[in-house]
Amino acid sequence: MNMMKAVVKPGPQPGLELTQRPIPEVGPGEVLVKVRAASICGTDLHIYNWDAWAQSRIRPPVIVGHEVCGDVVARGAMVTEPQIGDFVSLESHVICNICQYCRTGRGHICENTRLIGVDRDGGFAEYITIAAQNAWKQPADLPVEIAALQENFGNAVHTAFAADVTAKKVLVTGCGPVGVMAIMVAKAAGARVIYASDVSDYRLNMARAAGADLALNPRRDDVVAMVRQATDGEGVDVLLEMSGAVTAIDQGFTLLKPGGEAALLGVSPGPFTFDWNHHIIFKGARVYGITGRRLWETWYQSRGLVRSGAVNLAPLITHRFKLEEYDKAFETMASGQSGKVVLFP
Amino acid sequence: MNMMKAVVKPGPQPGLELTQRPIPEVGPGEVLVKVRAASICGTDLHIYNWDAWAQSRIRPPVIVGHEVCGDVVARGAMVTEPQIGDFVSLESHVICNICQYCRTGRGHICENTRLIGVDRDGGFAEYITIAAQNAWKQPADLPVEIAALQENFGNAVHTAFAADVTAKKVLVTGCGPVGVMAIMVAKAAGARVIYASDVSDYRLNMARAAGADLALNPRRDDVVAMVRQATDGEGVDVLLEMSGAVTAIDQGFTLLKPGGEAALLGVSPGPFTFDWNHHIIFKGARVYGITGRRLWETWYQSRGLVRSGAVNLAPLITHRFKLEEYDKAFETMASGQSGKVVLFP
Amino acid sequence: MNMMKAVVKPGPQPGLELTQRPIPEVGPGEVLVKVRAASICGTDLHIYNWDAWAQSRIRPPVIVGHEVCGDVVARGAMVTEPQIGDFVSLESHVICNICQYCRTGRGHICENTRLIGVDRDGGFAEYITIAAQNAWKQPADLPVEIAALQENFGNAVHTAFAADVTAKKVLVTGCGPVGVMAIMVAKAAGARVIYASDVSDYRLNMARAAGADLALNPRRDDVVAMVRQATDGEGVDVLLEMSGAVTAIDQGFTLLKPGGEAALLGVSPGPFTFDWNHHIIFKGARVYGITGRRLWETWYQSRGLVRSGAVNLAPLITHRFKLEEYDKAFETMASGQSGKVVLFP
Amino acid sequence: MNMMKAVVKPGPQPGLELTQRPIPEVGPGEVLVKVRAASICGTDLHIYNWDAWAQSRIRPPVIVGHEVCGDVVARGAMVTEPQIGDFVSLESHVICNICQYCRTGRGHICENTRLIGVDRDGGFAEYITIAAQNAWKQPADLPVEIAALQENFGNAVHTAFAADVTAKKVLVTGCGPVGVMAIMVAKAAGARVIYASDVSDYRLNMARAAGADLALNPRRDDVVAMVRQATDGEGVDVLLEMSGAVTAIDQGFTLLKPGGEAALLGVSPGPFTFDWNHHIIFKGARVYGITGRRLWETWYQSRGLVRSGAVNLAPLITHRFKLEEYDKAFETMASGQSGKVVLFP
Repeated sequence: MNMMKAVVKPGPQPGLELTQRPIPEVGPGEVLVKVRAASICGTDLHIYNWDAWAQSRIRPPVIVGHEVCGDVVARGAMVTEPQIGDFVSLESHVICNICQYCRTGRGHICENTRLIGVDRDGGFAEYITIAAQNAWKQPADLPVEIAALQENFGNAVHTAFAADVTAKKVLVTGCGPVGVMAIMVAKAAGARVIYASDVSDYRLNMARAAGADLALNPRRDDVVAMVRQATDGEGVDVLLEMSGAVTAIDQGFTLLKPGGEAALLGVSPGPFTFDWNHHIIFKGARVYGITGRRLWETWYQSRGLVRSGAVNLAPLITHRFKLEEYDKAFETMASGQSGKVVLFP
Repeated sequence: MNMMKAVVKPGPQPGLELTQRPIPEVGPGEVLVKVRAASICGTDLHIYNWDAWAQSRIRPPVIVGHEVCGDVVARGAMVTEPQIGDFVSLESHVICNICQYCRTGRGHICENTRLIGVDRDGGFAEYITIAAQNAWKQPADLPVEIAALQENFGNAVHTAFAADVTAKKVLVTGCGPVGVMAIMVAKAAGARVIYASDVSDYRLNMARAAGADLALNPRRDDVVAMVRQATDGEGVDVLLEMSGAVTAIDQGFTLLKPGGEAALLGVSPGPFTFDWNHHIIFKGARVYGITGRRLWETWYQSRGLVRSGAVNLAPLITHRFKLEEYDKAFETMASGQSGKVVLFP
Repeated sequence: MNMMKAVVKPGPQPGLELTQRPIPEVGPGEVLVKVRAASICGTDLHIYNWDAWAQSRIRPPVIVGHEVCGDVVARGAMVTEPQIGDFVSLESHVICNICQYCRTGRGHICENTRLIGVDRDGGFAEYITIAAQNAWKQPADLPVEIAALQENFGNAVHTAFAADVTAKKVLVTGCGPVGVMAIMVAKAAGARVIYASDVSDYRLNMARAAGADLALNPRRDDVVAMVRQATDGEGVDVLLEMSGAVTAIDQGFTLLKPGGEAALLGVSPGPFTFDWNHHIIFKGARVYGITGRRLWETWYQSRGLVRSGAVNLAPLITHRFKLEEYDKAFETMASGQSGKVVLFP
Repeated sequence: MNMMKAVVKPGPQPGLELTQRPIPEVGPGEVLVKVRAASICGTDLHIYNWDAWAQSRIRPPVIVGHEVCGDVVARGAMVTEPQIGDFVSLESHVICNICQYCRTGRGHICENTRLIGVDRDGGFAEYITIAAQNAWKQPADLPVEIAALQENFGNAVHTAFAADVTAKKVLVTGCGPVGVMAIMVAKAAGARVIYASDVSDYRLNMARAAGADLALNPRRDDVVAMVRQATDGEGVDVLLEMSGAVTAIDQGFTLLKPGGEAALLGVSPGPFTFDWNHHIIFKGARVYGITGRRLWETWYQSRGLVRSGAVNLAPLITHRFKLEEYDKAFETMASGQSGKVVLFP
């Protein structure tokens, strides 16, 4: 049996482990992908730290990693696309195709989704198998870091396009990588002005570089007062909530105009108290919960934005490590002083 | 100066008072309407009881009443429609026509709205003046109780049509008159099945008569379990929240399917704790805050439903009183053992 | 090799032939269905008559028939749903699942669609194989004629729901079975009023029974004048064009109000002259081309309408024949004096 | 009586005339605007040439010109906005505010619209009166040519935003000024790629400068073949038809992908023959007739695009003339060798 390197969560405790695992067998309808790059997500950090969410969801041992690209090196039975040799980005949500959500163009809420690197083995490894439809063909010359990042970029695209941002005033709360990408997408789609907030100055600088017109730190700035002033008292048409922070959510909805749209991707630590009357009902606001990527509209949209050059993801990649250096990579990621951190097997 | 009867909130305390007031002068762009009927709304009860909301919003003295119909008896300058003699229902939100919301077909969130019977004199009186555009012409033979009810019916229409109910499974939480009307509208629009909940058995009976397939009392029934069972574990596609009760909101969102739509009209007593992650974000749910009526789409839709006979509002009118009997009318309304209660000046 | 009865187009000439054919082998991802009923469509008549369209599309020999229901009697590899013994209606469009249209919830415009009974063997036979996903499970007690009709009913549902018919004035041009079903759907969805036109009085009677408020014969009635009068000069909000007749299309668009919606299912004999300026551009009209059924939203919607009882398809079934009587069945269908004609193998 | 210069169509024949006319009186709800600039539209050319359309629509004498900006110098009764001294662009469609279209946020299809410079006196003059709501306040430092152009720019915005262009492949047929502006808008909104066609090389150069990736001349280029090749045989997601040329319309629909959207602003010379089956129905295409600007969403959108700098209209202004030089200005406009031509009173 051929073996490969893999970073796994070995058991129910903090930390990860580099180990040897058999190269997985490709099943019917699947492809085997030789991983070229895989980026670290905030979710991976939860798994690393073994927090409450990780404890409730992860069943070790499991190979971690769900933002992955690589080359197709084998195909199972009944696969017509992609071809061996194709360079592909991976969609991390493996869906059933037969539930009512999959059958109505809403695979992002498939009731049987299995997430690579979470519910089953992921891509911080030399190889991964995955349903053929989850292997999205990329041009051979797309930089591997950009290809790995597409899964996460898709979250930003899904969120930003849930609302109508063109020619609108937009507030992005939370400027981690996915927030910064949401700024890029809103900018590419012709937002009139983009306000951003985050507690990290490092991230606010990335937000500014990505196109934010005004980037505020709620630890220092009165976000509500400053955005209100910048909008002549009006507030914003669109809120893209990428932080999950209760304060940010509250500020965002306070600034949301009547009739405004709020797209929520950020996951909060738990239930929280919220003024529905003033923030949603009296305003006639519309609120969209966002999860994953629309399968596969989001991938087509992402491709359009990247190929036209409307969005340039390169500046977001700040750190590169060998797979063996995973501990250092996670440390960098946890520091808050990074954009995307990419692992190379 | 000619005088008229009117029911007013005379000062900052509970109760109302029947008094004499001058018949109002009709201004430019306005009509004078001789009131034929006016129905009591839950909001009127808040004003009667002088609760926290009423204390914060109402500046006595003010004539109460905002669900009104009558005959146009005079017209101010520059009015082309309606004509003197026309029988009209009144839209209670008097809007500015020049703010950005009014100018983009969203007068229901006009930033300068003044509500009759709340922000200015209303219709529990013999006469009322109002902007000509707020006087919606009705057929001469429409029963006056039905005509008075159109404002409130419009809330139900606005809420039910914010989501797509046709061929869908719908849950209506809260079966006061506006909830019962939402059931009627969902039924008329071809909902596949309608579930309803309320704490009053009197109201649940009205809900059943209006078309609810299953009407549950959360004081007695396990609403979540029973609707789940009735839907083979699936839940509902659409939630129409008409109660403002935190328990109902929580049950409603628990039962909402992934990708579902929730339209919220019910006003809750204040901020409350809610699980956004599971109820909105992971589900990819969409939530719509509803206020007033879309001006004037809702009125056209309401007219269509009433004229085609798809909705029959008559059974909803359970009590009729002379204006002088307003105390008895409010008592009936407060008992929970009534549908709509109508006053006749 | 086991044989079965089948009605085939044997070669490039008018007419069909009852013959013996091998029972087809079920492939991976497929089911074998024992046909219980199959209804005749206008398309089948074109194939029977071997008209220009049929000559350009059909490659004989082929078993005809695409409105089919039956029992699942065998399953190929990798099929999880439906189960053996399940009673199913068939979706006639066998799609590829991997083209950009399939991958974005728009399988109805799959670029590799193969239509049973047209591009490959169909269901006027004792058995048919088809992709498992095309076998839509029905309740065991659904009448077989109704189950066979679902494919065609789905055309009506797709067309009627492409526009917003609730509380609107609707004109249905063309009252063949699919037009009559569109009337039923519009009625179920709460259309304010439904106008209908057809050149056959038999069909106009079916239209009236289905819910048309006014059913007109353009050979006798001035459709434009009469609908205009009935709408106080306004015209209609929605046009459902189910005839493909140039006169009907022109009348329909003449009657369409500014801002109106036109959903077009009827296929015309060829290109025709049309006044785009007045019929579409100056009116700000929206026009939707309709083909097939949305996969699989339409099937869910159809199920909702049938199960709630909002639509009753039974009156549409006017004639039943044994498969051997196919010539008589096609003759009945061609007479214009029928609703749906159903074959039983 | 104070007099002013004005360019009028004096009677039923080709040509215009510079004459003296009384400065108009401002009525209730109106403002008097001192014109600072007015640009020439294709419609003005039709009036100048006195073609069939002009003969059927225009009732001389009438002051021409409907793309206008200027300063508010007087206000009639009941006007609250704008203020005297405000610099304003004019919306040319004076609407009734009371028809069903105006009352449902669709003033662009008002059934009583009166167009300045066509149905009543326009803006090729020193002064014009207009309904106060038609005077859209602009920043004092907006160049007057850009301010005059907003009416026409709004046509481009309305058309481009009728479809979803972001991350999509777009074809713009017709590269007159409004076509070029549609290219600018599609570019600003993040279109993936923009193809353009026109018979004038001068205009194709403007199209390229505005952002077209490939600009083709159907007199020389095989538009269908070249766009097909550029799109790997796929065609385009969105057609923005700005020419009214039958060949362009046919090419555009030939290139439109299944499920595509076509927004049509160009007015054709008359009815024409078109293949609805293949161009619309089998494709499941959606077609939108476009007229005027959405009142007032389009104005808000236009403002957003101009103020953010996403669209730069300056290069479009190629010629400036004094009002007295109107003949020379029209000659320039007719030459096809110009962008927008602006008159200064």
